[in-house]
Amino acid sequence: MLDKKHFSVKLLPSEKIIKVPQNYNLRQAILDGGIDIESACGGVGTCGRCKVQVKSGRIYSKRNKFIKGKEKEDGYVLSCLSKVRSDAVIFILEKKKVRAKIEEGKFEIDKNKIYSGINTDELAAVEIKPWIIKERINVEKPTLDYNTSDLYRLNKSLKTTLNLNDVLVPLNVIKKLPHLLRENNWEIAITLDKSANTMINIQPHNKEKKCFGFALDIGTTTLVLQLVDLETGEIIGYASEYNPQIRFGEDIINRIVYSTKSGGLNRLREAVIGSINDMILRLLTNSNIDEEDVVSMVIAGNSTMMHLFYGVPPKFIREMPYVTVTNKFLNTCVDELGLKYIKNVKVYNIEGVASYLGGDITSGVLAVNMSKREELTLFIDLGTNGELVVGNCEWMMGCSCSAGPAFEGGGVRCGIRAIDGAIEKVFIDQSTYKCFFKVIGGGEPIGICGSGLIDLIGEMFLKGVIDRKGKFNTDIENPYLKCTDNDYRYIITNAENSGTGEDIFISEVDIDNLIRAKAAVYSGIKTLLEDVELKIIDIDKVYVAGGLGKNINIQNAIIIGMLPDINTNKYVFLGNTSVKGAYLCLLSEDKYKYTSEIAKNITYIELSASIKFMDRYIAGLFLPYTDLKEFPSVDLFYSP
Amino acid sequence: MLDKKHFSVKLLPSEKIIKVPQNYNLRQAILDGGIDIESACGGVGTCGRCKVQVKSGRIYSKRNKFIKGKEKEDGYVLSCLSKVRSDAVIFILEKKKVRAKIEEGKFEIDKNKIYSGINTDELAAVEIKPWIIKERINVEKPTLDYNTSDLYRLNKSLKTTLNLNDVLVPLNVIKKLPHLLRENNWEIAITLDKSANTMINIQPHNKEKKCFGFALDIGTTTLVLQLVDLETGEIIGYASEYNPQIRFGEDIINRIVYSTKSGGLNRLREAVIGSINDMILRLLTNSNIDEEDVVSMVIAGNSTMMHLFYGVPPKFIREMPYVTVTNKFLNTCVDELGLKYIKNVKVYNIEGVASYLGGDITSGVLAVNMSKREELTLFIDLGTNGELVVGNCEWMMGCSCSAGPAFEGGGVRCGIRAIDGAIEKVFIDQSTYKCFFKVIGGGEPIGICGSGLIDLIGEMFLKGVIDRKGKFNTDIENPYLKCTDNDYRYIITNAENSGTGEDIFISEVDIDNLIRAKAAVYSGIKTLLEDVELKIIDIDKVYVAGGLGKNINIQNAIIIGMLPDINTNKYVFLGNTSVKGAYLCLLSEDKYKYTSEIAKNITYIELSASIKFMDRYIAGLFLPYTDLKEFPSVDLFYSP
Repeated sequence: MLDKKHFSVKLLPSEKIIKVPQNYNLRQAILDGGIDIESACGGVGTCGRCKVQVKSGRIYSKRNKFIKGKEKEDGYVLSCLSKVRSDAVIFILEKKKVRAKIEEGKFEIDKNKIYSGINTDELAAVEIKPWIIKERINVEKPTLDYNTSDLYRLNKSLKTTLNLNDVLVPLNVIKKLPHLLRENNWEIAITLDKSANTMINIQPHNKEKKCFGFALDIGTTTLVLQLVDLETGEIIGYASEYNPQIRFGEDIINRIVYSTKSGGLNRLREAVIGSINDMILRLLTNSNIDEEDVVSMVIAGNSTMMHLFYGVPPKFIREMPYVTVTNKFLNTCVDELGLKYIKNVKVYNIEGVASYLGGDITSGVLAVNMSKREELTLFIDLGTNGELVVGNCEWMMGCSCSAGPAFEGGGVRCGIRAIDGAIEKVFIDQSTYKCFFKVIGGGEPIGICGSGLIDLIGEMFLKGVIDRKGKFNTDIENPYLKCTDNDYRYIITNAENSGTGEDIFISEVDIDNLIRAKAAVYSGIKTLLEDVELKIIDIDKVYVAGGLGKNINIQNAIIIGMLPDINTNKYVFLGNTSVKGAYLCLLSEDKYKYTSEIAKNITYIELSASIKFMDRYIAGLFLPYTDLKEFPSVDLFYSP
Repeated sequence: MLDKKHFSVKLLPSEKIIKVPQNYNLRQAILDGGIDIESACGGVGTCGRCKVQVKSGRIYSKRNKFIKGKEKEDGYVLSCLSKVRSDAVIFILEKKKVRAKIEEGKFEIDKNKIYSGINTDELAAVEIKPWIIKERINVEKPTLDYNTSDLYRLNKSLKTTLNLNDVLVPLNVIKKLPHLLRENNWEIAITLDKSANTMINIQPHNKEKKCFGFALDIGTTTLVLQLVDLETGEIIGYASEYNPQIRFGEDIINRIVYSTKSGGLNRLREAVIGSINDMILRLLTNSNIDEEDVVSMVIAGNSTMMHLFYGVPPKFIREMPYVTVTNKFLNTCVDELGLKYIKNVKVYNIEGVASYLGGDITSGVLAVNMSKREELTLFIDLGTNGELVVGNCEWMMGCSCSAGPAFEGGGVRCGIRAIDGAIEKVFIDQSTYKCFFKVIGGGEPIGICGSGLIDLIGEMFLKGVIDRKGKFNTDIENPYLKCTDNDYRYIITNAENSGTGEDIFISEVDIDNLIRAKAAVYSGIKTLLEDVELKIIDIDKVYVAGGLGKNINIQNAIIIGMLPDINTNKYVFLGNTSVKGAYLCLLSEDKYKYTSEIAKNITYIELSASIKFMDRYIAGLFLPYTDLKEFPSVDLFYSP
């Protein structure tokens, strides 16, 4: 076999050098070099995000619509469409490295009652009833006349003092038992999983009776981890990170595609496990908590994220008839999953409903407590997908409406997540068409997040910058409308005043993506309700969860036809309800068990197969809707 | 820190070279070089077995009683008492590498009944009722109207076709499920642990319905492994090996001592796991069985061996009041134990009774079926220790009588195990005192095994070579009695006619060790019986198990006072009953569960604390016994 030629590729500004064979894919080379290069499309040349500049060397690159004119002359290429044909030096545009800031839910602690903290009165109150307990226990000392085994005598104490029979004691505990008993004068602290009747750990008796747990939400875009005191319910620490799988594809579909490549599933799994390990270490270090005192972990996430976390092929989630391998994974030990820094801890996952209605939604339904109340509640989780559940204590129905990542910043050129530097509120001056805005954290904007985009579309529509189809109105004198090679752009702020040194703008393609996303959400709501012969007006309460940013302007969300046109008092905006539900489960075995009941009680509607949904979706491709009567409050003040 | 000097030690004949620091222990250096050097004492200079020859280099060696005169001049040293002080070349006396040949029990297969094969009528008959089953199963194909998860539909099939509810399906199965179902047109073969309601494996549907299991006995000296067809009970393959832990100490006490050294426990564990892995691989390769078709493993062994196998500190087995950490380990997956070549297999261990009455004895009691019969049975397992159980279906009592390894070849200079080259039968000519013998496998002898030693002591005693105290009779003209520097030796065969090139002999020290061993066994039997106010004569049946060699001469065992002087028809000699019991458990869940009952029903008597035992032991230090009336048949023909 002839040796393939190999070339050195130097990556700037990191100066990292990697060796690759001839014709190696440049984007893969950059990923191999450990640099997270953005790519919403998973590397097939359709998102235009993996642009890099070739400083020297021969790089063969396919023609594409994203790199033209000056950029092309300057050596820019889409790395995913490029092959290495000589030693080369590549400059990778540095993105501002920002850590997602997700607002932590406030939790009120009242004696033994912990509220999920959303709106105390009506929402899930949880009595602290942890399933993992720590107890001090005395073990009888053996004598020649009573020389039964250490474990026998321990079991006897468990029976007499805690009334526990036949507790399972795994090997890792057995190994520590003889010395620990003798070094602690036959008095030790035991950690028990009451639910599984299993001993998790043993420690010296003088260890404080403290137990901690982790609540984890694995989102397509964001990972959120809480470190919780299981005795008081206090949240000791809070960490969040981007899901590092983003570099393999921004949305669920692209990740599933990537998982089917050779080694892809494992790379995805290792990526997310690695970030979770980082967060665990950070929280343990910051809180100064002994890893041995962490005794449990509850996780929630959408079905694809769960498959990837457990290393189970998610392939068939994407293929007709869209099935998961399982909606509930057996409780598994951290070691088996590759989680580090905590030992002997079991990971409990919250049961999902279906391929596109995962445990994150079950967890959210638990957190908003809708399954215990009589009023008709609509729960909307606007993550990278849009998921809906409607119902009450009698019945629940749910669906996923493939909103796409537009409201989380995907599919929109200047779209970013709700992080520092993101435009979160927008106002357009009617006379000048100038855009005014508010930036998260202040300073110059680097992009626009979900709540900002809702405002922007709403404002552009109301002020006549765009028409009902989302096309720019070229009849008006709008100095902020620029015409480029291929499209029109409305300039939110120009390069001089932006944090990126480039214009912050929105194009017709972007608007189109946003309209499709809002149409999907609304037609999902309509389809769900109509399936049970209910109307928009019947809704008593709407909970909106997700990562759009907390300052969402509900009126604008109605104006663009994303949310139903009902009294805005009925709306409650929440943050991440998935991690809130996991938190509740951590504190209460009953709640955890109840999540499986919730999951089984939600009837799943597969919208991708629904003709009604498609009809409504098409009707929703107008602002706010084809039939203005559907949005009476918009109809009132809209004058085309 | 100053660097310690390092030296090269070349090991002959293997020519292996190892680097060691100054003053490094020579025996450890040889062990590090991967050479199993014998050492009954565990390396403290009291057994004299780790003798090597220094060919060149400076080796500092402590004075000792084993190396004297010519040997000393020739550069022989005890490696355990030697330190490396320069580069050196060391010659290690090569022992014949022999693999232990242990006779396989014959198992009669009769339709669905499997007998433990010892003596069919009266012994444990087992109906094949394996707990691990393999079944073909059809899973419904999902449709858009019925797109539940793969696992949900599998569970539904389990319910409808096998009436199984809530089967636990672990991650490794979940990972394979989606592709296997689709590649096999929704029909797969499942392997189920019915006892734990857990799915162990899934395979393509066209896999034969074959299931295999391993029965393993971990003896202090020997490891025995059987590969069993779980459907027919047929033993497909059989392997045995010395327990490689021998190099760290020949008996239990020395191994426990070694386990308390830094890293010792792990080295012991890894040694035995390594050998078991070798045997597994050999059996799988020879039988051409797919590792995926191996579904279970049952192990038996004494308490110390079990602790070492599981990596649990055995330290307190040796210390007053002699307790185990546990007599029963939680069923553990092979992966966690470090076992290779078989995956997803759980290891089930047979419950032990106490520190010195382990699962090997419980397993033996199951195999001889004494707990189900009314006749008074004495079960003796003469392994490296001697263990006894007496009783019937109403009651059982057991003890361990610290016989020591004399009858397995330990503590006797020319003693070896019952392997090829071992003298197994002995006859002494009354007129010439010449010794005649029979060698296992024929050819020149390399040593003498347990059955040979029993014959030898009996013959020497009867023919007047030794007196009742085991001292050589120097008044007779015995040309085979040699006087050396420190002791008298009776020459069994001289150097010219031996397979080792050295005399095969027995010394007074050896005889002393053997007499102490036989005294321990007999006084154990006496103590046990008297504790329940029974006499030797009340015994209906005696089962003798163990590794002494199958041709044990029962009359001689009575003559030396090891076994009770009762009708020899009451004796049944068996081989390894520990592995036989494990085999029965493999085929029947009921039997396995019953072993725990057996273990709990045996009342353990701690002899090391018994004054009665000590009295009888001292009385047993004569041939056959202080009081000749105890052995009427010997009394009859013995004329001092």
